[in-house]
Amino acid sequence: MASGIPETGRALRTLVTENGTVEVSVQEAPIPELGPGDVLVRVEAAPVNPSDLGILFAGADMSAATVSGSWEQPVLTAPLSPGAVRALAARVGKPLPAGNEGAGTVVAAGASDAAQALIGRAVAVAGGGMYADYRRADAAQCLVLPADVTPRQGASSFINPMTALGMVETMRREGHTGLVHTAAASNLGQMLNRVCAEDKIPLVNIVRSAAQEEILRALGAEYVCNSTSPAFAAELTAALEATSATLAFDAVGGGELAGTILGCMEAAAAKDAPGYSVYGTTTRKQVYIYGGLDRGPTIVHRTFGLTWGLGGWLLTPFLQTIGPDRFRELRERVGAGLTTTFASSYTQEVSLAGALQPEAVAAYTRQATGEKFVIAPQSG
Amino acid sequence: MASGIPETGRALRTLVTENGTVEVSVQEAPIPELGPGDVLVRVEAAPVNPSDLGILFAGADMSAATVSGSWEQPVLTAPLSPGAVRALAARVGKPLPAGNEGAGTVVAAGASDAAQALIGRAVAVAGGGMYADYRRADAAQCLVLPADVTPRQGASSFINPMTALGMVETMRREGHTGLVHTAAASNLGQMLNRVCAEDKIPLVNIVRSAAQEEILRALGAEYVCNSTSPAFAAELTAALEATSATLAFDAVGGGELAGTILGCMEAAAAKDAPGYSVYGTTTRKQVYIYGGLDRGPTIVHRTFGLTWGLGGWLLTPFLQTIGPDRFRELRERVGAGLTTTFASSYTQEVSLAGALQPEAVAAYTRQATGEKFVIAPQSG
Repeated sequence: MASGIPETGRALRTLVTENGTVEVSVQEAPIPELGPGDVLVRVEAAPVNPSDLGILFAGADMSAATVSGSWEQPVLTAPLSPGAVRALAARVGKPLPAGNEGAGTVVAAGASDAAQALIGRAVAVAGGGMYADYRRADAAQCLVLPADVTPRQGASSFINPMTALGMVETMRREGHTGLVHTAAASNLGQMLNRVCAEDKIPLVNIVRSAAQEEILRALGAEYVCNSTSPAFAAELTAALEATSATLAFDAVGGGELAGTILGCMEAAAAKDAPGYSVYGTTTRKQVYIYGGLDRGPTIVHRTFGLTWGLGGWLLTPFLQTIGPDRFRELRERVGAGLTTTFASSYTQEVSLAGALQPEAVAAYTRQATGEKFVIAPQSG
Repeated sequence: MASGIPETGRALRTLVTENGTVEVSVQEAPIPELGPGDVLVRVEAAPVNPSDLGILFAGADMSAATVSGSWEQPVLTAPLSPGAVRALAARVGKPLPAGNEGAGTVVAAGASDAAQALIGRAVAVAGGGMYADYRRADAAQCLVLPADVTPRQGASSFINPMTALGMVETMRREGHTGLVHTAAASNLGQMLNRVCAEDKIPLVNIVRSAAQEEILRALGAEYVCNSTSPAFAAELTAALEATSATLAFDAVGGGELAGTILGCMEAAAAKDAPGYSVYGTTTRKQVYIYGGLDRGPTIVHRTFGLTWGLGGWLLTPFLQTIGPDRFRELRERVGAGLTTTFASSYTQEVSLAGALQPEAVAAYTRQATGEKFVIAPQSG
């Protein structure tokens, strides 16, 4: 181990207990041994993404969360429903690391040339356990940040950028020519607008407020539909007719939105369809649910024939289908655009312990548009 | 035209009117001219399938249907909801033929050898307009019935048999190894049991009553789950674990059944899955809705991770994907099994006019298990 590396480091741990609670705490643990191909990354920035919340809090009722312990060693405890505890049986009693992605500086490396070459470099890492002072990583899995990109700028280099590119890639592979995106003013949604503008892909943005509409208009988005508008279905149908978009990615999940999109896609397709069929048009219509801003049931009024699909979409298995060469191409595109197309911005920076304070938890679990947290372990 | 063929024939016609009603009537019309490759089929039997009802009655409120006109020339009139009329705009004022499939005897033929060869033969035809005294058909599209098969036995040779084979074909093409079927005691469901038994495919039957369960048990079905059982979810999960079935075909559509199947598939998969993932197992789970016994909304509680799909499934476009060679193989299998594997039975036979009588309409629109109508145009 190189000099100057402490023997232990802190990390967030999340534990589902037999008592039906989830406990999230800051734990001190030994710095792991490095294999020949490993590097040790001193984590400087790790974002709080929606996809981190399921691991951190396991679907607990966060309105009933309490924090005990000291400022430096807080323990956040929140109750789980009996149903959630049953579903989480495999997690009970096993503390898990958290933090899907982040970036930092390589402060030690194994003996291999590839690992040694990264010493002192700023790298981004995805794959969990980034809410920590130090994270061991396979050198081959690190994205080396360009010289002018800071770890904070590179911290969100995987999930949102690869999700945006994955949506476009899915569209091409499944034979669609335009996209629909919900919760479209999100950090990811804004990124998707920049990608689609670059690639000249028509994109229909669905938002839930005038303020969100304004964010996207300011970004140059052409098609923005507000689901709270009384004429939403007609406005969405018109946008779908103009764009021929037949593939949607939905972050909301619950309620009637996914079904409404399918219905409007069918209405747009029917305007061009020859004649009438009791089974609807032959236009393939697909909605992928990739998030769960609304945890309630998905309610689908099947008024759009039989040529439709609804399903889940998850980044990691999708990336496994595209092959290593295409994966590398997408990663390189992200690396080249971290301060432009794929830039993320944060409204709040917190330490590991600060991430467990009630007001911080309340803020980032709200998943409000324009509010994004980054954890900076070295800040406290 | 050969001698003995009248100049006109009767046929059922369905008309959506500007007044917001659907009118179904018996109309007399000239016998169509035959092209060189055409034959004229005197229709002897045409089943009333669930897929015929949408064309015949256009989703009208059949509880408010009235019948006027004479016994020989009845006119059934039923009111449409304003929403249905909008959706049916393309049908307004255009009388449509009905009857997706049927069988009869070739009584005249065009000049081609292929057409002439069919004179006097019993053939089955699919493609609409079979609720008629006579139907012109392309000789190449006729299924010539074996000598020991009557038109009544061959009348249902397309929709149910090809749907059952299409489900199995879809399973193989999409990489699944077992099937789930709802409304499984139906004529189609019983046929699917025979096909799966022949092909040694595990099949989980879902029914809604003890009587339906009994029908399938008597047929030798191994896995039958009654959705009205208090332990339905546990029983279905156990059957899914035993069969590894990850593809379901659902005739119900509305309510929570499709989502419950996905949830039980996930529970069965999780028992074998290594470790816990917040995104659920990586087992692909798919439900295709191919019917609408429950026209209400599909309600999906998303408790099964992100590796799932729900969609519509329709026979004709599916058959277009399998290619003409495979299509011919499936048709030949049906032709060879019309009195065994692919046999249909009927509880009621009615004439064209009889099919519009209130008690007949009430009976076949109920789509009750074990009750199936066949229209015999020559019977009255």
